[in-house]
Amino acid sequence: MIKPNMATMLAFAATDAAVAQPLLQRLLSEAAESSFNRITVDGDTSTNDACVLVATGESGVEVLENTPLFEKFSRAVKELMLTLALAIVRDGEGATKLVTISVEQAQSAEEALQVAYTVAHSPLVKTALFASDPNWGRILAAVGRAGIEQLDIDSLQIYLGDVCIVERGGRAASYTEEQGQRVMDLEEILIRILLNRGDHDERVWTTDLSQDYVSINADYRS
Amino acid sequence: MIKPNMATMLAFAATDAAVAQPLLQRLLSEAAESSFNRITVDGDTSTNDACVLVATGESGVEVLENTPLFEKFSRAVKELMLTLALAIVRDGEGATKLVTISVEQAQSAEEALQVAYTVAHSPLVKTALFASDPNWGRILAAVGRAGIEQLDIDSLQIYLGDVCIVERGGRAASYTEEQGQRVMDLEEILIRILLNRGDHDERVWTTDLSQDYVSINADYRS
Repeated sequence: MIKPNMATMLAFAATDAAVAQPLLQRLLSEAAESSFNRITVDGDTSTNDACVLVATGESGVEVLENTPLFEKFSRAVKELMLTLALAIVRDGEGATKLVTISVEQAQSAEEALQVAYTVAHSPLVKTALFASDPNWGRILAAVGRAGIEQLDIDSLQIYLGDVCIVERGGRAASYTEEQGQRVMDLEEILIRILLNRGDHDERVWTTDLSQDYVSINADYRS
Repeated sequence: MIKPNMATMLAFAATDAAVAQPLLQRLLSEAAESSFNRITVDGDTSTNDACVLVATGESGVEVLENTPLFEKFSRAVKELMLTLALAIVRDGEGATKLVTISVEQAQSAEEALQVAYTVAHSPLVKTALFASDPNWGRILAAVGRAGIEQLDIDSLQIYLGDVCIVERGGRAASYTEEQGQRVMDLEEILIRILLNRGDHDERVWTTDLSQDYVSINADYRS
């Protein structure tokens, strides 16, 4: 049950910097949007969640908008939130892999996320990930059923890590299964899907689907 | 990999009645729409499928539009297609249950299907079905995240078979777990979701999610 928006999670972060409340709130929203709100284990969400960022000002260091210090502070907060979010994914029910799905060159952020979540939630993609199988056909099929209108299958590319596995509507000419296997054997896997139809990029993080996922979510009462 | 639209399936049906091709085609489309195109095991679709209906006319019995005989013939074809479609669901990877999800009183057919498929594809609902657990919270949570605007949680009702499990936004007052357990122990389960906001009804058929589903889809190469 992990697809925060938010999910069953309580996140608390604190800084001793002095940051005005409206600025801190805006930063928190951005940081949560690109971290906790981009992770999914199974697509199921919860009714309970919270993400809190507190600035005590104890250090006396004031962080003001549109300053180099704010940029640095902002990056630090976003890295912290992402680190926490990825820890949730790694701890997903029965998870053996941490999978980054990066959809690039989409016409809009919504389109990129639609493809990313369709792939992230595909049980066939997730079981192939569990099997460490570089199954390019399952990934391509999930992209194809994501509901993107007039998607040109011939111009998209899919990479496993730095290995191009799909181009021109099928398996990449240069691809060998040994290359794909090398990436799939890792515990952290990057799937890049280049749609070649715009300049919007989005990424989500997810896990594989194992027998343990089923056991944890089916045997909880016994 | 079963959510025909169509899926990896070849369906062939034949009759010795004489039926004009355009009429037969229209009937086949309707019959496929309410049978093969309403089943889903995991939401993943395939690129290959076909459903063929042949009328040889060998019997010399002509079936004409807008006649009682056509009504009877039409019912028979639809029952046949649904029987075949449900056989596919029963044979789904690792399936132990045949689950009917009936969404009623929706504002549109699209809305009803949106709720039905969200529930049908929810890994948490599916693992609870595998566990034979009358987990009303998981069903209600899936309805809640289906993306229906201005859904009034207080006026919807959810039934397991003939047992009301959810009303007024929570567990039904009359509900006892023994009642729910009696339904969930069956191999064929009906989940009825009454949205109370329109007059469109749709149903889809699905299965539970078991460890065997994962094994079949992850261990296929070993």
